[in-house]
Amino acid sequence: MTLLADVLLMALVVCAAPQEGSVDTPAQPNILLILSDDMGYGDLGCYGSITIATPNIDRIAASGVRFTNGYVSASVCAPSRAGLLTGRYQERFGFEDNLNKPMQLKDEFAGIPLDQKLVSDRLKQLGYHTAAVGKWHVGESVDGHHPNARGFDFFFGMLGGGHGYFPTLEKNKLERNGVPVSEIRTPYLTDWFTLEAQDFIRSDHEQKPWFLYLSFNTPHTPMQATKEDLATTQHLQGFTGVSAKKRRTYAAMQRNLDRNVGVLLQLLEERGELDNTLIVFLNDNGGTPPTNGGCNAPLRGMKGSLLEGGVRVPFLIRWPGHVPAGEDYHQPVISLDLMATFLHAAGGEMPLEILNKNKGTERIYDGVNLIPYLNGQVDTPPHERLYWRSGFQSRAVREGKWKLVVTPLLGAMLFDLDKDIAEQHNLADEFPDVVARLRQELFVWETSFERNPLWLTAVMWRKYNAKHYGREYQLTQPTQ
Amino acid sequence: MTLLADVLLMALVVCAAPQEGSVDTPAQPNILLILSDDMGYGDLGCYGSITIATPNIDRIAASGVRFTNGYVSASVCAPSRAGLLTGRYQERFGFEDNLNKPMQLKDEFAGIPLDQKLVSDRLKQLGYHTAAVGKWHVGESVDGHHPNARGFDFFFGMLGGGHGYFPTLEKNKLERNGVPVSEIRTPYLTDWFTLEAQDFIRSDHEQKPWFLYLSFNTPHTPMQATKEDLATTQHLQGFTGVSAKKRRTYAAMQRNLDRNVGVLLQLLEERGELDNTLIVFLNDNGGTPPTNGGCNAPLRGMKGSLLEGGVRVPFLIRWPGHVPAGEDYHQPVISLDLMATFLHAAGGEMPLEILNKNKGTERIYDGVNLIPYLNGQVDTPPHERLYWRSGFQSRAVREGKWKLVVTPLLGAMLFDLDKDIAEQHNLADEFPDVVARLRQELFVWETSFERNPLWLTAVMWRKYNAKHYGREYQLTQPTQ
Repeated sequence: MTLLADVLLMALVVCAAPQEGSVDTPAQPNILLILSDDMGYGDLGCYGSITIATPNIDRIAASGVRFTNGYVSASVCAPSRAGLLTGRYQERFGFEDNLNKPMQLKDEFAGIPLDQKLVSDRLKQLGYHTAAVGKWHVGESVDGHHPNARGFDFFFGMLGGGHGYFPTLEKNKLERNGVPVSEIRTPYLTDWFTLEAQDFIRSDHEQKPWFLYLSFNTPHTPMQATKEDLATTQHLQGFTGVSAKKRRTYAAMQRNLDRNVGVLLQLLEERGELDNTLIVFLNDNGGTPPTNGGCNAPLRGMKGSLLEGGVRVPFLIRWPGHVPAGEDYHQPVISLDLMATFLHAAGGEMPLEILNKNKGTERIYDGVNLIPYLNGQVDTPPHERLYWRSGFQSRAVREGKWKLVVTPLLGAMLFDLDKDIAEQHNLADEFPDVVARLRQELFVWETSFERNPLWLTAVMWRKYNAKHYGREYQLTQPTQ
Repeated sequence: MTLLADVLLMALVVCAAPQEGSVDTPAQPNILLILSDDMGYGDLGCYGSITIATPNIDRIAASGVRFTNGYVSASVCAPSRAGLLTGRYQERFGFEDNLNKPMQLKDEFAGIPLDQKLVSDRLKQLGYHTAAVGKWHVGESVDGHHPNARGFDFFFGMLGGGHGYFPTLEKNKLERNGVPVSEIRTPYLTDWFTLEAQDFIRSDHEQKPWFLYLSFNTPHTPMQATKEDLATTQHLQGFTGVSAKKRRTYAAMQRNLDRNVGVLLQLLEERGELDNTLIVFLNDNGGTPPTNGGCNAPLRGMKGSLLEGGVRVPFLIRWPGHVPAGEDYHQPVISLDLMATFLHAAGGEMPLEILNKNKGTERIYDGVNLIPYLNGQVDTPPHERLYWRSGFQSRAVREGKWKLVVTPLLGAMLFDLDKDIAEQHNLADEFPDVVARLRQELFVWETSFERNPLWLTAVMWRKYNAKHYGREYQLTQPTQ
């Protein structure tokens, strides 16, 4: 958080908004955070898709801000969520990779460590009624990691990282507040999540504002769509590494997700809550062409890599009267900013936690409140740099136009993203000073963490991810 | 182990030596493994020292083989010992860095994991009477890690990584077989270790051969020498980064160590055991000029770095009738080879352990029996490549004349060790194909491990080690 941002936030708090610490003023917006899973960067209408129509998600963009340099803090699901939910680079507390609990790790550390507070904890403290619906994936082995123990009054979904889309009573991992489901409410999981979200929105909030973290697993594998949706995508073709069948299923799942987002927007509209709800749509990490058929055009790389296709994602925010409608924001922002943005919208402030009284060290939070940047009050970039690490060895940093990516097999790659969004031209040899300086910045960042990784990617995933740095998938929008 | 080596070993076993599984044949030599601690590469007479006389250690070289490319598997104490004692790259079982037990790690994993067998376990099984004297440093938090639980019949010393040289009854961490010492036997610790070693050598072995792992902490900090030794080194001067006082103390400690090695050689001679004892002298990792005043000339780098000064060490072997006397061996060898060498000398074989029956995977051992290489039976290099990793990010590989070193701050450095033993000329830009190929070899090695690190270097050591890659100390022998 910059000093300037601090000053502006103070101004916002004093001039426009609720008093510090107030918890039930009507000025507190509802907050709806919609997360998708492994979606291709180029697979929404508002991000350039020609073949997949997503009118409802596009409607959020048209009435809010579309980030053209919106990032997540990891290129795979679990750490990306750990960053999103804590507002901190998840490496700070040892959540480096997808959960891969080694036998030597104490159970209670197999998730977001319990010494970390989640955005849900904070919003609850600010008077919110809170719910999580869908995929959890940040700790399931002991009770302390359950969403109900981590600031969410209500939970429906699965604790793990994936789920079949046609659950049966015999075969499902779904639960509601710790109780396994006893009926299949509707055949298709994405529809079911939406029903639960609708129920929560309609529920008695006891005059509190509400926060809903709606974590769809669409369009993560397994690739399963309804007959109705599939019927509309049979004209589509595949592309390098993606069969027509896979692409059709993927597009059908996207269509279903978009329709469900429309259902929720309509419900909010009917209830007169649409404009007093801060809505964010975000995807957790890049699409994965060879497994789910997503397309990250025009970006290189995919889930599991720190190239743009792994970490730059569709990212939209809508909050009428507070952020512009139908505009783009081009400076780099990151999912970690949502915690600060939500807390400030709710009239709160970022927490101050002393880690070591003697050394005077505070817990570092990495996000900033985006609102003053979006409404023009601040015109500097929100972040001097953004950083990524994966499996302890692959690392990346973005500073302005520069992106440095370092991997064990390929070494240092430097890209000028202003001229080369597809990361085709490695300029490392041409600008050794930039490489050396950004290496140093990465090292400073890496040596600011509270702990080393609690676990690391399993060998099979190291091999898999390394391989995919070297492969290229569709870099231009498919036209059929 | 190469096929050729296997065939030759079989030949050795059949033609010359004890039957497989025999435990008490007189052909089994005693084995004395002397380890020093943080010694500078250039601080023995037999490795070029002009100012420090070490006639007794030199005597081992003169009557045995001096390795000019002898390596350890880590550049700091604990992992180097873990590799030495198991015959495996210690990263294979998660012992990556000096012990830095994180709170989330189960106690029983804070050391060499108990699923690994030590050379002491193996030799005991082959009928040896076994002892460890000195510094342990590979697990102290639970009983399972105690030397007495890891194949050593006798233990005297300290379980941790360091100790003052003038112990008092009030202030010492010394024990004998788990029992804290109740008397100070002699004032200076190095002398005391030697007394315990003499006792063991003289003890009743019940007609078994014996194995003594004598792990001196000399010349590790704290820098403390006897008045008598100090009196002989007051003419010495310091050099860049090393004060005269520190250098004088260091040299005095070396002198003491050498004298104690002489005492042991003399005892063996008196007992008629000298020529039936396989003696190895080895240092655990590079000297550390700024803290102990060691000099790694002509090598660049120091303890904690993967440059030659961190991992190439004084390494001698003496076994009359089996290896030549007074010769040099120039091919790269590594401390991991000692397990295979000792087991074969003892008439045993390397163990075969099935890790996964379905996949048919065996536990990988990284050492080879050096004897046939030293006595001329085999003239190919013992290893195609040697590898190192430190803190998961710094890595190195040696293949023939090539050495690739990759660090987070400096990137890839390629050296031609035939022409440039001091690693002054980075040829990475000139030979990008060699860099790419060796990166690939490193990756293959790294993805062959059984588990990820159990802990990693603390942040302060990452910073410290990174800094020291960029500094240079004495590259030529001090002449005063």
